[in-house]
Amino acid sequence: MTKAGGKQEQHRQDQGKQDKKAQQYGVTPQSVDFNDWYNEVVKKADLADNSPVAGAMVVKPYGSALWENIVRWLDTRFKATGHESLIFPTLIPMGFITKEADHVEGFAPELFTVSKIGTEELSEPYVLRPTSETIIGHMWAGWLNSYRDLPFLHYQWGSVFRAELRTKAFLRTSEFYWHEGHTAHADEAEARAEVRQQLDLYHEFCRNVLALPVVRGEKTASERFAGAVATYSIEGMMRDGKALQSGTSHYLGQNFSRAFDVKFQTREQREEYAHTTSWAISSRIIGAIIMTHGDDFGLIMPPNIAPIQVVVIPVGRKDNFDEMVAEGERLAAELRAQGLSVRVDKRDGVTNGFKYNDWELKGVPVRIELGPRDLEAGVVVVKNRNSEEKETLAREEAVSGMRARLDGIQAWLLERATSFMLDNTVTVDTYQEFQAAIEAGKWVRAFHCGDPESEKQIKDDTKATIRNIPLDDAEFFAEREEGGVCVHTGKPAAYGKRVIFGRQY
Amino acid sequence: MTKAGGKQEQHRQDQGKQDKKAQQYGVTPQSVDFNDWYNEVVKKADLADNSPVAGAMVVKPYGSALWENIVRWLDTRFKATGHESLIFPTLIPMGFITKEADHVEGFAPELFTVSKIGTEELSEPYVLRPTSETIIGHMWAGWLNSYRDLPFLHYQWGSVFRAELRTKAFLRTSEFYWHEGHTAHADEAEARAEVRQQLDLYHEFCRNVLALPVVRGEKTASERFAGAVATYSIEGMMRDGKALQSGTSHYLGQNFSRAFDVKFQTREQREEYAHTTSWAISSRIIGAIIMTHGDDFGLIMPPNIAPIQVVVIPVGRKDNFDEMVAEGERLAAELRAQGLSVRVDKRDGVTNGFKYNDWELKGVPVRIELGPRDLEAGVVVVKNRNSEEKETLAREEAVSGMRARLDGIQAWLLERATSFMLDNTVTVDTYQEFQAAIEAGKWVRAFHCGDPESEKQIKDDTKATIRNIPLDDAEFFAEREEGGVCVHTGKPAAYGKRVIFGRQY
Repeated sequence: MTKAGGKQEQHRQDQGKQDKKAQQYGVTPQSVDFNDWYNEVVKKADLADNSPVAGAMVVKPYGSALWENIVRWLDTRFKATGHESLIFPTLIPMGFITKEADHVEGFAPELFTVSKIGTEELSEPYVLRPTSETIIGHMWAGWLNSYRDLPFLHYQWGSVFRAELRTKAFLRTSEFYWHEGHTAHADEAEARAEVRQQLDLYHEFCRNVLALPVVRGEKTASERFAGAVATYSIEGMMRDGKALQSGTSHYLGQNFSRAFDVKFQTREQREEYAHTTSWAISSRIIGAIIMTHGDDFGLIMPPNIAPIQVVVIPVGRKDNFDEMVAEGERLAAELRAQGLSVRVDKRDGVTNGFKYNDWELKGVPVRIELGPRDLEAGVVVVKNRNSEEKETLAREEAVSGMRARLDGIQAWLLERATSFMLDNTVTVDTYQEFQAAIEAGKWVRAFHCGDPESEKQIKDDTKATIRNIPLDDAEFFAEREEGGVCVHTGKPAAYGKRVIFGRQY
Repeated sequence: MTKAGGKQEQHRQDQGKQDKKAQQYGVTPQSVDFNDWYNEVVKKADLADNSPVAGAMVVKPYGSALWENIVRWLDTRFKATGHESLIFPTLIPMGFITKEADHVEGFAPELFTVSKIGTEELSEPYVLRPTSETIIGHMWAGWLNSYRDLPFLHYQWGSVFRAELRTKAFLRTSEFYWHEGHTAHADEAEARAEVRQQLDLYHEFCRNVLALPVVRGEKTASERFAGAVATYSIEGMMRDGKALQSGTSHYLGQNFSRAFDVKFQTREQREEYAHTTSWAISSRIIGAIIMTHGDDFGLIMPPNIAPIQVVVIPVGRKDNFDEMVAEGERLAAELRAQGLSVRVDKRDGVTNGFKYNDWELKGVPVRIELGPRDLEAGVVVVKNRNSEEKETLAREEAVSGMRARLDGIQAWLLERATSFMLDNTVTVDTYQEFQAAIEAGKWVRAFHCGDPESEKQIKDDTKATIRNIPLDDAEFFAEREEGGVCVHTGKPAAYGKRVIFGRQY
């Protein structure tokens, strides 16, 4: 048997072991049906459940704890950069939505309409906000007088509502959760700097906290936010090769400020419309965490955002279980003193094997098993979620090394996801190669002529769209290349570089 | 001039000074029109603004920061007592609301109805949640199997919607903000203990954090939450003598679990309906802070919840303003190192007098003025919001003593509010006295027979209702008194004690 054959065999054995475990555990393997895998993991890991409201989910405690961690990190950074939170109404007068022409065209098919309050039929209905540019523009018009009042650096956390026919928890729900940032500036340069600052913050958050390698770039005109002058996004690759737009930042020019009369007196006593921006990350990002890091055993939570970073499992018999639980709590207290989030699994009606599987499915980064003989020997058994191997370590060593261990898992996740994205992105120059690569579930780097009609045809052919045009200083795929020709039309390439095509969520 | 006359004169002079300041600042004095005072303070202190949506407000940055502090304190305590957050949909199928008979009767006139999504008219409409017992009951039915699953200790933060004809920021808005706690238990005793635990938590929060003396008690049947077996409340007295219900905790018995089939197998293998509770504090509590502590100069924020605890005002001329700002930042950094929230007012387009008034209006507990001569002398000028007096202190002394100073202001606020409540509560035994006291804007302690018809007549006569029946271990008005007769009907008294009557917000 050659060395390569040996590796293949090993891989096959590993795979068999995985399949068996997955079957036993009851999650469909990713390779069998990625969609089923996703839905089962969401439900069995207790992230979310279906609801009796069309298109809406219920976020369960484990999913809510994850979302709260996301909110806390971002909120702290928004405040640190001078942004202020506000709370605007959930309802928006229908007439507001129709004021910005592109905006109404973009959102009309997705709106929830409120036409009755108590027993009173409303002559002018309200909609549940699909986003809040309009009502915020309206309020700003009343608050803004002079250049001295600017910038407005505002954001709010809350729900938004956009009808969805095919629901999928976190990815496509008719009610979802987000922050929406809204800022107003005296000039274009400052507004564009804000747009970029927030895009970069999202990139930092995804990379360093969620271990998601994402590509920063600009959207083409046909993929822009309804009403924007320029839309920037971060795009991540899921383990089925599809792209997930994970955050957006928009330069709105003076479109909304003209529609809502958001003007001010300049230092030179002229009257001028404000330049506005908006930006958002939503609960979709939880879908990105699941689909970037998960495997056939379930979730893998990046340690820097995990609701539970370490789970301690007291392994006892009936006669010493309480004692082992107490020991587990002592161990947990030492870990918590380092600022770690630790859970002790005290359930007594289920087997140890069930517990192990349950926490693997929930993706807790590190598991510690603590049995009576371990206790006597002064050791614990430690297992990282991303490894098959169990380690027996001196108790103190396990405690003192926990932070570094978690950092190691965090780095491993980012590296694996980065390799996966790079390995599954191909550079092509012919439409035949293009179609084959998209069909194979890859991202494609190709030249495009910039014609929206061509983008539409490519989408009709292949279901792929231009995810974005990577920025010149994006971490990935940033290279400028002059003189290319469009992979679809053969016309001269736009943008001065290849763009990223892919199918998307 | 006698001593009493001297005091009176002093009071008159003080009053004149206050009136002048209030006029200059532009807030109507409380004694002239409490309602105008409230609305002006809310707007001028930048807590909230009116919105273009009927009955809804916009919460501005200062109000939002206050609400975030409230959320953070309560959320930490909910989690510390084992409660888990979830996120339920904002929409509820109309059919759910009608399942619990009392519930629909209570909420029907206030519902917002969604009858169209996109272009599709819905055969079964949704309502915007007025509260979430129904949809949570529905979900619980799917999650609950065995007594081992209990208790469910759930809560969520979010908006709720109840139509309001006459809007008043924080107090009566058609959309408001709250947490709603929902728990399910295997038996009545455990459920009732939860109801009491949360009521006591609310009491602790109001007393120790918001400096609001509140009376814990049970509501009479006619004032119960729609669908509850027992409703408990905390009631506070505003500076116009009216009561504000500041938090509620309900024992729902098996009413909602029967309506939504929330049942489980007991340890003895019987099938049983869960005993459920719900509890809430809403954004109304901000109204209580404003109306309990505010004076003719504006808000007074209790230091333990204040978004800004100390404001530093650099007092410079054109040529040294930047230097004084830098000194102010240095001072602020020392205070922040103690965990205090400090703002340096760097605005250069406004006078010092304007700044002083502005921060007094916003109720910042302590102001520090820092001028060039102070700097040379190593002193600062310190003024507490609740005093007319300015103190010149050594810089180090001002810094090292700041926490104690804030604690002193906190204690002073609670003491003042407590005295005010006790001074404005009268104990009466005749209906004539009762009517006179209510008319004079007091709370009344009186016996009542327990007949809902009599409660209704009293309300029609005087606009006063029974705020609550103080608990036997309530901090205030807890005394049991046997043998009383009803102040209204002359029948034997119910409850074994006097109850609290008052007009209410």
